[in-house]
Amino acid sequence: MSDRLQGEARKDALAELENWQEVSGRDAITRSLRFADFNAAFGFMSRVALKAEQMGHHPEWFNVFNRVDITLSTHDAGGLTALDVKLAKFIDSLA
Amino acid sequence: MSDRLQGEARKDALAELENWQEVSGRDAITRSLRFADFNAAFGFMSRVALKAEQMGHHPEWFNVFNRVDITLSTHDAGGLTALDVKLAKFIDSLA
Repeated sequence: MSDRLQGEARKDALAELENWQEVSGRDAITRSLRFADFNAAFGFMSRVALKAEQMGHHPEWFNVFNRVDITLSTHDAGGLTALDVKLAKFIDSLA
Repeated sequence: MSDRLQGEARKDALAELENWQEVSGRDAITRSLRFADFNAAFGFMSRVALKAEQMGHHPEWFNVFNRVDITLSTHDAGGLTALDVKLAKFIDSLA
């Protein structure tokens, strides 16, 4: 299992994820993305789903039409871990 | 475009959708589903996505691991229409 990021390690990780915001009241990060249409939005979600399943680490996400809101946190660790950073970077690579 | 359901037509439609709850403060319906795991949850979402795209009518939905929360309403009509009833019945047929 991945350990919760603390102190400098956490700060450095967040500095790399410039498209992501910290979630108020939770040790989690969030990003909202918009696509051309539902086809593009769900296509993106499918690519993230395959990666998430491979990693054994899944997002919390909301979709309506062309919009996808994603929240990442590691439930087992009670906050952000390297798994969230890895999945966030994968998402950024698609967006 | 589908017309917003009113009066008896709306009442009859909701009576058929016993797995769905009305959303407070909106003319919309919601259902929460749980699956064995993420694979099953996202597999279900993929089947709904294909149907939604074919219908040109899409859900609002949230997923975390094995849980999928779905809200249906027709934005263009400002509330529930026959499209929502059709999509809800399709979802029920999968669940």
